[in-house]
Amino acid sequence: MAVEAPPRQLTDFLRSLRAVRDFQRKPLSDDVVQDILEVARWSGSASNRQFVEIIVIRKRETLQALAGLGGYVGHLRGAALGMLLVAPGEWPEGETFDEGRAAERIMLGAWAHGVGSSIGWFSPEGRKEAKRLLGVPAKPVVRTAISLGYPASPPRRGSRKPITELVHEERYRA
Amino acid sequence: MAVEAPPRQLTDFLRSLRAVRDFQRKPLSDDVVQDILEVARWSGSASNRQFVEIIVIRKRETLQALAGLGGYVGHLRGAALGMLLVAPGEWPEGETFDEGRAAERIMLGAWAHGVGSSIGWFSPEGRKEAKRLLGVPAKPVVRTAISLGYPASPPRRGSRKPITELVHEERYRA
Repeated sequence: MAVEAPPRQLTDFLRSLRAVRDFQRKPLSDDVVQDILEVARWSGSASNRQFVEIIVIRKRETLQALAGLGGYVGHLRGAALGMLLVAPGEWPEGETFDEGRAAERIMLGAWAHGVGSSIGWFSPEGRKEAKRLLGVPAKPVVRTAISLGYPASPPRRGSRKPITELVHEERYRA
Repeated sequence: MAVEAPPRQLTDFLRSLRAVRDFQRKPLSDDVVQDILEVARWSGSASNRQFVEIIVIRKRETLQALAGLGGYVGHLRGAALGMLLVAPGEWPEGETFDEGRAAERIMLGAWAHGVGSSIGWFSPEGRKEAKRLLGVPAKPVVRTAISLGYPASPPRRGSRKPITELVHEERYRA
């Protein structure tokens, strides 16, 4: 179970993840897609219920159609592949949290292969239309679209708040 | 930016994460804690808003008090260290998703150092009491507690649904 790589190499990898929205058209190999999906499969979930299912979108016309729906999903247009998350729609708070966990893992699993990715949400109207397009029944929620592909350019360096603004010791200081 | 490790080594690492609830008392070094917090800091968030703040709990009496509150947080009792997530309480859906992303990264950042962890949620009543205990003002949400520590025993092998139950190709099949 113990990991063979030096800890700092692994945490450098985790820290190196950035959102990528411009992709090469180069397709992902089946091996790479399977490996990413296996990372998603081992995502943790409340009581190991594994709420989150994934619709893999490879057809260009489907990616185009989804990219045109409401929400922040336009990056699907140029993606080599899309992954849409489906939650059962029974426990909004818990499913939303576990969707976040799964999405982060998919991004990291992709990045391990040098594949960039970006998360976007459909608008309320876009969610309905995406479900219609993909044959999803009434109850489940289709909220999150993840675009994947090899980056067209090096990811931006990015920026984050200093750690002192994010971390409190023992007590919250407002 | 490219990662130096073989892709499969990184995805094996991602897949090897398991929840750990029994911990050695051995403390985490400051270096390890800082490295985990830096992984959390680089977590992605909607529009890079970085909603999620972290309260680091090191005092045994605080861990005990929190572990006794309502919810699935008893694992804090034996933790070497706790991290509690604080969300602003302005956009429940988005913050919940980004809390999931941040929690997953904290677990992975810890596991890179061989540190086990477990996620639990406070009950609605427990959330209020945790806020009182930690001096958090009325609006923010304290929902997620992450226990950290070196595993007392090897993590369980775990199990997951077969991938065919989780993944759909192009269209949802109910």
